[in-house]
Parts: sequence; C-alpha cells; structure tokens
Amino acid sequence: MRLIESVPNFSEGRRLDVVERIVEEAKKIEGVWILDYSSDPDHNRSVITITGEPEAVEAALFNMTLKAKELIDLNNHSGEHPRMGATDVIPLVPVMNVTKEECIALSKKLGKRIGEELRIPVYLYEDSASTPERISLSNIRKGEFENFASKIASDQWKPDFGPSEIHPSAGVTAVGCREYLIAFNVNLGTNKIEIANKIAKSVRHISGGFRYVKALGFKLEDRDIVQISMNMTNYRKTPLFRVFEVIKSEAERHGVPIVGSEIVGLTPLQALVDVADHYLRLEKFTSSSILEKKVLDFIADKER
Amino acid sequence: MRLIESVPNFSEGRRLDVVERIVEEAKKIEGVWILDYSSDPDHNRSVITITGEPEAVEAALFNMTLKAKELIDLNNHSGEHPRMGATDVIPLVPVMNVTKEECIALSKKLGKRIGEELRIPVYLYEDSASTPERISLSNIRKGEFENFASKIASDQWKPDFGPSEIHPSAGVTAVGCREYLIAFNVNLGTNKIEIANKIAKSVRHISGGFRYVKALGFKLEDRDIVQISMNMTNYRKTPLFRVFEVIKSEAERHGVPIVGSEIVGLTPLQALVDVADHYLRLEKFTSSSILEKKVLDFIADKER
Repeated sequence: MRLIESVPNFSEGRRLDVVERIVEEAKKIEGVWILDYSSDPDHNRSVITITGEPEAVEAALFNMTLKAKELIDLNNHSGEHPRMGATDVIPLVPVMNVTKEECIALSKKLGKRIGEELRIPVYLYEDSASTPERISLSNIRKGEFENFASKIASDQWKPDFGPSEIHPSAGVTAVGCREYLIAFNVNLGTNKIEIANKIAKSVRHISGGFRYVKALGFKLEDRDIVQISMNMTNYRKTPLFRVFEVIKSEAERHGVPIVGSEIVGLTPLQALVDVADHYLRLEKFTSSSILEKKVLDFIADKER
Repeated sequence: MRLIESVPNFSEGRRLDVVERIVEEAKKIEGVWILDYSSDPDHNRSVITITGEPEAVEAALFNMTLKAKELIDLNNHSGEHPRMGATDVIPLVPVMNVTKEECIALSKKLGKRIGEELRIPVYLYEDSASTPERISLSNIRKGEFENFASKIASDQWKPDFGPSEIHPSAGVTAVGCREYLIAFNVNLGTNKIEIANKIAKSVRHISGGFRYVKALGFKLEDRDIVQISMNMTNYRKTPLFRVFEVIKSEAERHGVPIVGSEIVGLTPLQALVDVADHYLRLEKFTSSSILEKKVLDFIADKER
C-alpha cells in the first residue's frame, strides 16, 4: 500500500457546519481516511488531516478545495492567523512507499487542476517550489488576501498554475510537498527554565543545532518540571534518536535527568523503526520485516 | 484490524505439489495472507506462515487440515523431524488487537471442529493446554505416530477434542496459542566462540538468564566474528532491549564491542515500538499513534 498524508488548512474556524461540509468531501472518497480535524475560532481557521493512496488523496483535496471555494468568501474573513485563500495551503507528505519525487509530481498535478479547473491561482511551495523564494510559505503569503491583487500582478509572483489574477472570493492557494512533521517533546527533571532554554538552543537549527529541528523551552507548571518542545521537520535527515542523545548529554552536563519524552499526534512508522534500528544496531533491517507492514502491502495488492 | 498469525506444520516436505495444494486452501480464504512457506525434504515437513483476521485464519486452518488429511498418510511417512499427525501442530499467535484469552478461545474452537468434523484427535498445548504436562509440544508428541494408538488409550492422554482413537492415516494434531517468536541475533566484534557461549549462557533461561530467551553461541566464519543467536519466545515479558543491554554489558566486561544485530524473519510492530519507547523514555506512547497502524484499523472498520 502507498500512503500520502495531507493537512489542508481552510480559512474557516467559526462556522462549523461549513467545516463539516468540507470534511464530508474527503469522507466521500473511497480509500481516504480522516485522521483528525480541528477548528480554531480565534484564528478562524481549520486544519484537516487525511491519509490514503495518493490518487484518492488528490481527488479528496480537489473536491475539498472546490467546496471551500463555494462556501468561503475571504472578503468577509477575519482572524488572527495570516491567510491568502479559502483553501490556504495544501501540504502533501509522503508516508509509505511513496518517494519525494512522486509526491512533488502529485502536488503539481493537483496544483494544475486547482488552477485550471477551479480558476484559483496556485503557488508551489517547499519541496515543490519553482524558485528559492517560493520555498517558504510565509514568504508567499506575505501581504495576505487583501494585498494579493497587486502582488500577483508582478512578474516575480506570477502563479505556477491558474489565472494571473486573484480569485475574487477564494484568493490563492499554496500546494507543496514537505516531510512529515513530528512533534517531539523531552521532559527534564528540573524546574529551571533556563536549562531547558539552553538545551533547546543547542539542538535547534537557528542557534547552530540540527538542520531540521525547531525547539523551545517550556515550563510544565503542574508537574513542576521543564520541557524542550520540538518540531522535527525531517525525521529522515535529523532522526529522533540523534537529537535525544544530544539532549541527554547536555542535560547530564547540567546534572539533570531526562524524565520522559512524548510524541504529540501521529508519527510515521519509519521514525520509530529508525530509533529501534539505531539502539539495537540492527544490520540491514527494513520496515518490510514488520508483520503489520506486510499486511498493509498485501491489502493494497489485493485491491489492485 | 485484528490480526492472528499461525504457522501450521505439515508432515510433507518432498511432494511439493501436495504442499501447494495445502497452501491453496489458505489462498482461497478472503482476508488471509500467506507470509511465507518452506519445505524441508530431510525433515519431510513443511511450515506455512499465514496471517489475517482471526475468523478467516480459523477457516483457512480448518480447510488446510482437511486437505492434509486427504493427501498425507503417516503410514508412508518418514523424516528426521518427530511428528504425530498429517497436520502435526497448529500454533496460533495473537499479533494485533487480539488478547491471549481470545486466541486461546479460538484455538479451542478450531480444535473442536478438527476433532468433531474431521475425526482427528486434538491436543491443546502451550497457553491453551488443559493440564501442565500438555504445555510442552514435545511431551505430547513423545512416541510419535507409530506409538500413538496405545498412548491415546491411556486416561492421561485422552485427547481434548475428537475421538479417543488415533486417525488411521492422519494421526493426531496439536493446537495451541503461544506468543510470537522473534529470532534475534547479536554479533560480537571477536572470533572467540567462548565469549559468545559465555554471554549466551548469561541471558538464556536454562542457565539462569531471562525466562523467555533461548540462546546459543555461533561462529560466523565468513565474517570472522561470533554471534549470540536467540529465540525470544515472549517479547512482551522479556523485551529485546533488556536482553540487548545485558549482552552489551557482558561484552564490555570482555572488552568486546557489539558490531550489529539482526531480526530474522518477521517481527510484530509492538516489539520494535517497545524498543523505541524504552530508549526515548516515551511517556504513555501506544502504537495507535503510528499512522500506518491507524490506517490498518480504519481499513478493518470499513470492511465490517
């Protein structure tokens, strides 16, 4: 079985019936599963997590974008979170038996359909970006819906697909392939926030740490301990165990133990296999030696 | 999705067309997947590994036992491996979302059907055993097919299901629930077999080690190193990481490094999750936080 995950963001977090109708579009597609969805009324924004075979996920995302275009008018939208479209951003994430290249190809296929069939301008971002300045979503989104009519008119911001004019109510949409993001937190046996901050600095990219780690120190008031809260933005290139070992070594230097860790939300199987592989020093182990993984592959074979 | 694994052993390892026809019975059942099968002509015995939803696996095993009864006559069977039936033994192994109790109930249901419908006497063994002396398969099998006509006549060896007389051509069959067996080997950076033997002794049950470990030292001639080769007979109670850490500590004492390890064949997901959980010190992590596991559960929900 091949699996893609997508976490489309829609600019509606207050009218929950509208969100339901968008979710409904994904439910209709055979072979697409809704892992989670949540709405934030302050941000006036909803995030829906779906997974499935690439073709099924593509169909679901197209139909969700169509529905969002029908139901959301950005002229009447306000919220704390920056946004530029009814369907603001569609990240695509390869999970199982899908390469980055296949994921990028899928993002372009979907982007083209949204651009041409729905007449919504599409920007490719992250791994799918056509120019370096389009890698960053916030760079694309700068100016937001209100200023996009003029931004899109410049040569520099000609969209990758679709019309060269902003859609009057649905704005513009970003589509791109990126790695799976794992929310990984490590808890320290101390209540000194300065130690958590110091260790966070030692592992995060911006301060000289690992390329694919974002990290902050936090206080867990109820437990009277501190936490290094991380976004692991590419677990293949910056694996969990490596970051964990650096945190352990830094914590030791402060005479502080690691009391626990947590993965918030979901993780791809491979990220955990990599941890087991590292500590057990496995030779030539692949996830196809996992019984459940084999069953998933069989199921897909049968269905084809 | 609920998953059971079974590794039935059949007393035929030379006539491969017979083996194929038995395998065919499993293939016919929707929702049963054949993970592996192999025949040993010296043992004159074949081992078939299947998995699937409990009900489907039960149906496949019943049909395979029926087919083996039709095609195998133990009066004409010889081989190195001890045996007592055409279908010699049917182990059932809970893999995913199935408890030990449910697995035992399944073994009794299947045993009853084989006994009553196929008229083959059935002994429940391992976790399903009705008396302590029936826990061990080799204890049940003692005397083999040739001596079972008299053995079965004793009160002590009255079968759990089916007639109190041996089936004239298909013998008797053992059915039982046991834990998943993981073949786990650890390689040492030395060619001294005595070190491997010494460490094997330190971890294996029989010499005072872990309850669910069988271990032997081996030479890997081509790599000029030695290996501790293990059968982990209950990874839930004797987890891989704990045994690995003891081996590491013992090897250090001999000034020898662990250069690698391997899992031969398949492993249930949970055994690897337990390793990652241990080393990352995860708090309250369960395998339902794994995306692929969620998909498996969704697929089963849909099918019901």
